[in-house]
Amino acid sequence: MALPFLPGSVSLPDFENLAYQQGKVLRVAIMGLGSYGTRVADAMQACKRAKLVGAISGTPAKLKDWQSKYNIPAKNCYNYENFDQIKNNRDIDAVYVITPNALHRDQVIRVAKAGKHAICEKPMAINAKEGQEMVDACRQANVKLLVGYRLHFEPNTLEIIRMRKAGELGKVMFFQGLSGFKIGDPKQWRLNKELAGGGAMMDIGIYSINGARYMVGEEPVWVTAQETKTDPVKFKEGVDETIQFQLGFPGGAVASCLSTYTMNNLDRFFLNGEKGFAELFPATGYGPIKGRTHKGELTGPHTTHQTVQMDEMAAIIFDNKQPVVPVDGAEGLKDLKIIDAIFQAVKTGRKVELKG
Amino acid sequence: MALPFLPGSVSLPDFENLAYQQGKVLRVAIMGLGSYGTRVADAMQACKRAKLVGAISGTPAKLKDWQSKYNIPAKNCYNYENFDQIKNNRDIDAVYVITPNALHRDQVIRVAKAGKHAICEKPMAINAKEGQEMVDACRQANVKLLVGYRLHFEPNTLEIIRMRKAGELGKVMFFQGLSGFKIGDPKQWRLNKELAGGGAMMDIGIYSINGARYMVGEEPVWVTAQETKTDPVKFKEGVDETIQFQLGFPGGAVASCLSTYTMNNLDRFFLNGEKGFAELFPATGYGPIKGRTHKGELTGPHTTHQTVQMDEMAAIIFDNKQPVVPVDGAEGLKDLKIIDAIFQAVKTGRKVELKG
Repeated sequence: MALPFLPGSVSLPDFENLAYQQGKVLRVAIMGLGSYGTRVADAMQACKRAKLVGAISGTPAKLKDWQSKYNIPAKNCYNYENFDQIKNNRDIDAVYVITPNALHRDQVIRVAKAGKHAICEKPMAINAKEGQEMVDACRQANVKLLVGYRLHFEPNTLEIIRMRKAGELGKVMFFQGLSGFKIGDPKQWRLNKELAGGGAMMDIGIYSINGARYMVGEEPVWVTAQETKTDPVKFKEGVDETIQFQLGFPGGAVASCLSTYTMNNLDRFFLNGEKGFAELFPATGYGPIKGRTHKGELTGPHTTHQTVQMDEMAAIIFDNKQPVVPVDGAEGLKDLKIIDAIFQAVKTGRKVELKG
Repeated sequence: MALPFLPGSVSLPDFENLAYQQGKVLRVAIMGLGSYGTRVADAMQACKRAKLVGAISGTPAKLKDWQSKYNIPAKNCYNYENFDQIKNNRDIDAVYVITPNALHRDQVIRVAKAGKHAICEKPMAINAKEGQEMVDACRQANVKLLVGYRLHFEPNTLEIIRMRKAGELGKVMFFQGLSGFKIGDPKQWRLNKELAGGGAMMDIGIYSINGARYMVGEEPVWVTAQETKTDPVKFKEGVDETIQFQLGFPGGAVASCLSTYTMNNLDRFFLNGEKGFAELFPATGYGPIKGRTHKGELTGPHTTHQTVQMDEMAAIIFDNKQPVVPVDGAEGLKDLKIIDAIFQAVKTGRKVELKG
């Protein structure tokens, strides 16, 4: 039964949900058809507001494969030489850059110059200077720059952030983030300084950096860090194997974090406040994020992170929706500034002050 | 039915257990009748091989109270002026020193000079120099020096150590220790540098130091540390509120630890190996120690730590029993050397190398 519209009535239609369902669909091309690119492509099949419509790769066979697998028209496929031509393609709104870290800067800037919105996998770049150039280029081109922070949309993560904001944890004093796995094939690009820009920190340690920020809800003001290398053959100069790092926050909270390529399944967040605690274990994996607080188990639904991320990014791009935790270039840049400081702290053995 | 003794027979009597049951009883005087002293006294009522027979206090009313409460003869009561006379008391074997940290050195040396075995609460002293003097004095006096490391006898803790030694965790790469509570009354001796020798690190941080050593099973070779102080009125110069510290071990394992007087119920250990993990939460409290490993929940029985500790110490003193994890002066000294290094690392902001 439809109720008549009355001022002050609570029976208004759910405008937000309608907008979400009926809003413009974000038509995306994926650049870099590796394993994570494929994961995103698969996840996007369930999207309501985002659609995979294009692909960019240096390998013709992969493009062919994706054309049939994901029903992508040949005219929406590009390689690394010609993808600037995407500017003339009115069927593509955004490009999701999922390539080795060191390539992000140039590729995102080219995407921006082609007038397309850029979504970039984390780390956004290999240092803050490059990240800033990307932010500037996208602003200049009047396109959005978003970073693939899929956990910013994860229900149990968001529940902890809600609890912290509501004061249910009391004053937050400590965050602990453990991020690591045992990396395999020593020949992969992630262990190549030129392509990865570092080692574990760029790839997995960034989860603890980003997590520290969204769990504590403040920006750190100092960082200290210590590197340990047990295998200098596998982890060459400039490719970090294990780094412990600590962050200090303006309110007096501190964080203890670990980034490693040499320990199995290390994926744990712990947040301690004066009134309670929250923990996630696993905290950042693709599978269900599980955890508990002083009030009991977290029971948020498991979502396919990349599906939700892409739907939400459509709303961010087209409806200017503001997510609980930002996923824009400024957010990516904050993590990069901390990574720069961690590497500096490792090099100098000293505390590094961070400026806003 | 008694079986005849046959060489090679497996039906031997349980000599160890018999010795334990029938062994000489350790007759103990407690020095310092505060809240922890009372806890030990209560726990000792259930001991099989240790017996509370004496008390040392500066407060006559407390001595009187203990005489009736624990059935202690007046002749076994002393004060801080006359307790050297304990050397003439043949009814006391050992003195358990449970006084403010800064007093331990002189008191333990006086106990040793009186020819009695010394049991000392942790921290054994306020720095390694004093600890060494205590070890030397006890050796010279030919008495044992033991430190109140009650967790070295705790079943779930020992199960993790067993698993690690048996290789069930694989190569151990990481330990995390979080030790803290929110300290109350600002006038207590624990917040007085002269009596405590420091702040949270001496009192609660030492659990993470000691835990790192027995969980990893190695001695650290370096330490880094960072101090944070949010309340300089409550935590005066030389009284640490919050210190994060990191340890590096010869095998490449690292530890991230937190010591704090400003966070509630922070009592967690986590050990990560190549094949599995172990965690304790709570890890060091008086109540049941709980935890899990990659194989499931730990199900060791809850014991009253101080009861078991005192029975085991009787066996260590009289039968030269070797505990799985030592509780002697050398063990206490190892923790003090690390505490010294942590304070040095905080002061200098640099990594401090540790020597054996």
